[in-house]
Amino acid sequence: MDSFYNKRKIFNDPIYGFVSLPYEIIFDLIEHPFFQRLRRIKQLGLTNLVYPGALHTRFHHAMGAMHLMGQAIEEIRSKGHDITEGEAKAVTIAILLHDIGHGPFSHALEHSIVNNVTHEDISQLFMNRLNDEFKGELTLAIKIFQNKYHKKFLHQLVSSQLDMDRLDYLKRDSFFTGVSEGVISSDRIIKMLNVANDQLAVEAKGIYSIEKFLIARRLMYWQVYLHKTVLSAENLLVNILKRAKELAQKKVDLFCTPALKIFLYKQYSKKDFKNDPKLLDAFAILDDYDIMTSIKVWTTHTDPVLSMLCTQLVNRRLLKVEMQNLPFKEAKILQIKNEVKKRYKVNDKDVNYFVFAGTVANDAYRGDKIGINILFKDGSTADVAKASDQLNIDVLAKTVKKHYLCYPK
Amino acid sequence: MDSFYNKRKIFNDPIYGFVSLPYEIIFDLIEHPFFQRLRRIKQLGLTNLVYPGALHTRFHHAMGAMHLMGQAIEEIRSKGHDITEGEAKAVTIAILLHDIGHGPFSHALEHSIVNNVTHEDISQLFMNRLNDEFKGELTLAIKIFQNKYHKKFLHQLVSSQLDMDRLDYLKRDSFFTGVSEGVISSDRIIKMLNVANDQLAVEAKGIYSIEKFLIARRLMYWQVYLHKTVLSAENLLVNILKRAKELAQKKVDLFCTPALKIFLYKQYSKKDFKNDPKLLDAFAILDDYDIMTSIKVWTTHTDPVLSMLCTQLVNRRLLKVEMQNLPFKEAKILQIKNEVKKRYKVNDKDVNYFVFAGTVANDAYRGDKIGINILFKDGSTADVAKASDQLNIDVLAKTVKKHYLCYPK
Amino acid sequence: MDSFYNKRKIFNDPIYGFVSLPYEIIFDLIEHPFFQRLRRIKQLGLTNLVYPGALHTRFHHAMGAMHLMGQAIEEIRSKGHDITEGEAKAVTIAILLHDIGHGPFSHALEHSIVNNVTHEDISQLFMNRLNDEFKGELTLAIKIFQNKYHKKFLHQLVSSQLDMDRLDYLKRDSFFTGVSEGVISSDRIIKMLNVANDQLAVEAKGIYSIEKFLIARRLMYWQVYLHKTVLSAENLLVNILKRAKELAQKKVDLFCTPALKIFLYKQYSKKDFKNDPKLLDAFAILDDYDIMTSIKVWTTHTDPVLSMLCTQLVNRRLLKVEMQNLPFKEAKILQIKNEVKKRYKVNDKDVNYFVFAGTVANDAYRGDKIGINILFKDGSTADVAKASDQLNIDVLAKTVKKHYLCYPK
Amino acid sequence: MDSFYNKRKIFNDPIYGFVSLPYEIIFDLIEHPFFQRLRRIKQLGLTNLVYPGALHTRFHHAMGAMHLMGQAIEEIRSKGHDITEGEAKAVTIAILLHDIGHGPFSHALEHSIVNNVTHEDISQLFMNRLNDEFKGELTLAIKIFQNKYHKKFLHQLVSSQLDMDRLDYLKRDSFFTGVSEGVISSDRIIKMLNVANDQLAVEAKGIYSIEKFLIARRLMYWQVYLHKTVLSAENLLVNILKRAKELAQKKVDLFCTPALKIFLYKQYSKKDFKNDPKLLDAFAILDDYDIMTSIKVWTTHTDPVLSMLCTQLVNRRLLKVEMQNLPFKEAKILQIKNEVKKRYKVNDKDVNYFVFAGTVANDAYRGDKIGINILFKDGSTADVAKASDQLNIDVLAKTVKKHYLCYPK
Repeated sequence: MDSFYNKRKIFNDPIYGFVSLPYEIIFDLIEHPFFQRLRRIKQLGLTNLVYPGALHTRFHHAMGAMHLMGQAIEEIRSKGHDITEGEAKAVTIAILLHDIGHGPFSHALEHSIVNNVTHEDISQLFMNRLNDEFKGELTLAIKIFQNKYHKKFLHQLVSSQLDMDRLDYLKRDSFFTGVSEGVISSDRIIKMLNVANDQLAVEAKGIYSIEKFLIARRLMYWQVYLHKTVLSAENLLVNILKRAKELAQKKVDLFCTPALKIFLYKQYSKKDFKNDPKLLDAFAILDDYDIMTSIKVWTTHTDPVLSMLCTQLVNRRLLKVEMQNLPFKEAKILQIKNEVKKRYKVNDKDVNYFVFAGTVANDAYRGDKIGINILFKDGSTADVAKASDQLNIDVLAKTVKKHYLCYPK
Repeated sequence: MDSFYNKRKIFNDPIYGFVSLPYEIIFDLIEHPFFQRLRRIKQLGLTNLVYPGALHTRFHHAMGAMHLMGQAIEEIRSKGHDITEGEAKAVTIAILLHDIGHGPFSHALEHSIVNNVTHEDISQLFMNRLNDEFKGELTLAIKIFQNKYHKKFLHQLVSSQLDMDRLDYLKRDSFFTGVSEGVISSDRIIKMLNVANDQLAVEAKGIYSIEKFLIARRLMYWQVYLHKTVLSAENLLVNILKRAKELAQKKVDLFCTPALKIFLYKQYSKKDFKNDPKLLDAFAILDDYDIMTSIKVWTTHTDPVLSMLCTQLVNRRLLKVEMQNLPFKEAKILQIKNEVKKRYKVNDKDVNYFVFAGTVANDAYRGDKIGINILFKDGSTADVAKASDQLNIDVLAKTVKKHYLCYPK
Repeated sequence: MDSFYNKRKIFNDPIYGFVSLPYEIIFDLIEHPFFQRLRRIKQLGLTNLVYPGALHTRFHHAMGAMHLMGQAIEEIRSKGHDITEGEAKAVTIAILLHDIGHGPFSHALEHSIVNNVTHEDISQLFMNRLNDEFKGELTLAIKIFQNKYHKKFLHQLVSSQLDMDRLDYLKRDSFFTGVSEGVISSDRIIKMLNVANDQLAVEAKGIYSIEKFLIARRLMYWQVYLHKTVLSAENLLVNILKRAKELAQKKVDLFCTPALKIFLYKQYSKKDFKNDPKLLDAFAILDDYDIMTSIKVWTTHTDPVLSMLCTQLVNRRLLKVEMQNLPFKEAKILQIKNEVKKRYKVNDKDVNYFVFAGTVANDAYRGDKIGINILFKDGSTADVAKASDQLNIDVLAKTVKKHYLCYPK
Repeated sequence: MDSFYNKRKIFNDPIYGFVSLPYEIIFDLIEHPFFQRLRRIKQLGLTNLVYPGALHTRFHHAMGAMHLMGQAIEEIRSKGHDITEGEAKAVTIAILLHDIGHGPFSHALEHSIVNNVTHEDISQLFMNRLNDEFKGELTLAIKIFQNKYHKKFLHQLVSSQLDMDRLDYLKRDSFFTGVSEGVISSDRIIKMLNVANDQLAVEAKGIYSIEKFLIARRLMYWQVYLHKTVLSAENLLVNILKRAKELAQKKVDLFCTPALKIFLYKQYSKKDFKNDPKLLDAFAILDDYDIMTSIKVWTTHTDPVLSMLCTQLVNRRLLKVEMQNLPFKEAKILQIKNEVKKRYKVNDKDVNYFVFAGTVANDAYRGDKIGINILFKDGSTADVAKASDQLNIDVLAKTVKKHYLCYPK
């Protein structure tokens, strides 16, 4: 981002065109190695094995969400609601850093190696550390992030069912995957934002855009986030890391980057992270490169389970996936396991690395959580699910659960 | 690419939408580990440090060029020129594999580690190997690729100043960088393709599209390919790899992935590659992950030059770059070097890793090479540079050379 | 369309880019004055008073639908279903001419002046006349249009709930209005088309695109086709034409273009059109220009009702519209009428030109008609409304009815 | 524009998305019948006969240019240059009204019927009249429009070689024609605007965007504005109106709308317009509908020349056009005239309605006029044509002249 590093501080986003950095501290935070590492962490993990364009990073997403925040602040101010310069800066910092705690392939990592500490915990640790380094300049941002600030709508811009995070990632993920059904008009939605009773609200005339946003979200779930081949790849990654951890616990020697070694050969708790600041530094150098490089080397490891799993991932020989509304019959699973045990010469325990079932669910809209408020011309508000008899939000609010079964082709 | 692996074989391209695979062998070649590795090699190397979206891979580009080839074949056939099924399949294979020999950060690698063997050499080796594996099915494709086939226009679709390679990469690079000045209308250009005297030609009414294509190409050179911050980053990478090689030759111990170790600690010639097929297999597992992972680890190496260079790249603390039309004065360079020697405590030789000058040049159109033919309604043809007095192709045909100087901020 | 009139026959569509004419007869039909008149008939009537870009014509829509038909034919053939050259040409002619019978502001005209003959009747008359002129070359096209051909899917491509007409107009109308919620991916839908049991079907993996298509259609209804200001404008036009007809029947002199005079001063039946071929010729010279020009002149007519109505339309002083789910109370309507009678000095009858109520309804999907078939991998088919428990088609299939009330501000 | 008429005043532009009206007076001006009439005047006259989508109006263009003005004001202010609210409002009014004096098919009309008064004269008359009606609120806008205000850059935003007029029309014309070569990045250009010495300037880093803008402009000239079929149609229209005027002067009876009659049967000077305010009111009701409707009726006029010309236009049977760099030989023209005289049975004078030669010229950039200033980082400025040795502006600055010859096929 050269253009970035001169006075004007502009960068090029294929989605929004020219994007400006609004504050000096935003520039400084982006320059920080904690933030630069997000350049090496893909937003959608292994999704590029299905959609080859989906290589965009958490770095790019954070910048995009920051850009939308600027538009939202301007829009809300133009409607007569006060947002001070300090609040504007704080809410912009909050959205920039909202995902800072993500590690490489977060979801997989949290289900295998770093399984006692969530990325939310680590985000908090990073923010506190940065607040120290920046001499308290992030205090209000953190307060807003934690929803401890009295103007609730500021937190809702960062985290709610219609936050700048979701607006950017839906748009960005559909742009880079090429799944045009997921494209949303963030411009139009932001133009309809308003505030009522300190809560974020959408003006009634924007109701169709909201409905379209929720539908796009649901489509993205089934076509991208829960795409069955993506599920298959992510489960494969989880299994690789579980197997590696299992071997590491048996003191088996494994090629490892130094950063990965720390977390593979030992188990740390949230408390450990708090007590030993070096753990956070170690985490801060872990990224997609450590994981994929180690897996590439493990393709020739002497453990046949590990090498087989790694070869499947590297050469993209993924497991077959079936998906259905009802659970799979135990008998069917057992039969497949028996076949695979023979074919792969694996025991009763290890066969579970190759044959396994699970469930996924999507929630396009959660009626039970703080919802999306619709603001009518008369000043009254209502939850979008109840705002109109023409809409299908209630249908969208139903959680859809599916069962899947993975096994070798 | 799940959708890929079923019967219909479609994949999603954010640029072209749905793309179909035209032949069974194309599917099989894509599945081959030699081709799958291109998923892990970025098309534009370190350009994402300036344009964060530029993470697209050689895999994706090869698929895109293949898609355009299908359109070009259809268009040329529709104008009454014969292309047999065998030729169509061969020219499609040729474009799919045209870049198969690229290693990670090709340009940097060829100027540091693998410096006796070009990516063109390796492409040829990969193609021959694949031809063996596919029992001669690639013979015609290789013939066309090497321009040994009598229908010259087929080779020109793969490699010329208006080939499907260029059409796709200009479009793709401008799409993912967000540099909209580089966007070209590949559809329009392909609709204007024709064949005259066995040479590829563009119909006269397409002359403005060609002019726009050449101008877009020139803009992409200066705004992306030769962007000064990109230059700075690439030179930094070359210097890192040179330093590592220097240390390796002194038997200094360096963390390395196995694949990188092979090429870092020994030097191989084109002949070596031919004599020992295992070298190609070793090359085939080298990708961006090996390079970046090793560099990340080297940030803490005991060699201060290496660790300093690597930290600069990983944390994106790039050298300052000046660019001008005239060479930099020796005196100025010397003065900077003296300052840096003191600041960094490096000797006369090592200062060159931090302070260095160079030149770059772009050629939007090479009048001295086989040009772009314009086909007039009367059947006559002319080189585009001479086809019209309204055009500025002659200006575009002038090589522009620039001098740059890099040094620490 | 210069490019059109030379051998290559290409024209520029801002939506699809270059579009080629597939057959010589398509070119000849487009050149015919009956078809050229569609250049002077806007697709969306007065919608441009709300969406200033919505000036596109029935000519342009017919060409676009023809283009999509070419893609659909290619796709269906590629899946192994036979479509002969004769059938392809016929179905292309059928879609090109499907709307040829539309007059200017069709909907308004059919509710005022030409109220005994539908545009479908006139389409049929035009097609028969053209078939005579083209010596029977349209016979198969007409058969398909009338659903009398045994391959039912051909008719369904021209007229069904997923025909090329709808695909083009939804896309075109959202493009020119700028209502991006209505944008559909015609490419993606066409890629999913198939044929099962001689019926048009959509492959199961395209189910999300279909859902999105139906939702887009619904959004376009409420945001464009039934937009309350558009309704107000269209009702105003109906009232103008009714008033003019009323005056004409009283032999009051009105400025008129010759073409309009014919239909304003006399009433013709379907039978009259069949008996007197000159009536069709007269209709063929009637277009938007006749209507708007006459209305502009009538702004200074001595009849105060007519001149007031015309001034409202020309200067865009439209009636206020209220819209609600329940019918308006009679008392409220009466009260408004009383006020307007005084203000405008009009009698009990004429007040109805200024104050009136009505209803509108949209059907995104008609479950009671021949539906959209989903084709599963196992070869079975099902109606889209029943194809998946995840979808909301049943909600979309519910007709939504609304009541509106128009009166002066 | 319903959304327009409520408090928020937003309208939908297919190019820019949601566009807001910045001031109450802008809304009031748009509502004025003088401005509403621009809804009925196409921006590109008969160009839709070649590019069917080119039906956009002067109304839509004026709104678009107003939108860009808002962006430019914001950008220039953000760079520390003062623009008061009064100046901002005035410059926005100036751009909104810059084309208000255009009549229908302006170019053709000025070469036939209304040939002593330019559209610039009439714009001035309309502005003065509106200023009276709005009680002097337009005084500063008129001053800026006439370049009599001391901050010269404000006038340059309205009228210069890089004004908001050009930015919008290039973008709009390429959007609606579908000639994608003409698409420009108005966003990027506006982001680079600045002011130096009270002159509008472009920052040096935007130089490639400017070059691309000039090239797009040149392409639009040759592919759209001077497209030979468009030329043929426009000359046909001029000839129709000239013939009608000729007949009118001989007191021949011609069907006419009242508005057209005034200007067809009498000749008015600039002075007449000033002396008789009713002339401006008459002009204000003249639009595309008057012209095309009259022409449609004239297809059956008893004058064979007039009826032949009108039929050619209505049924799109345009003259053939040849275009070349050198003048056509007199002998060739004579020979064609002789043939046509026989074929059409017309005399020596009337043949000139069917056979005629002319010239056209484009100027992408006028080096002799006030140019586009480039502002360098050191604060110095230079004309874009001299700003860089890499650019081809000097080539673009050369006027290209071409000769054309029209005659019946």
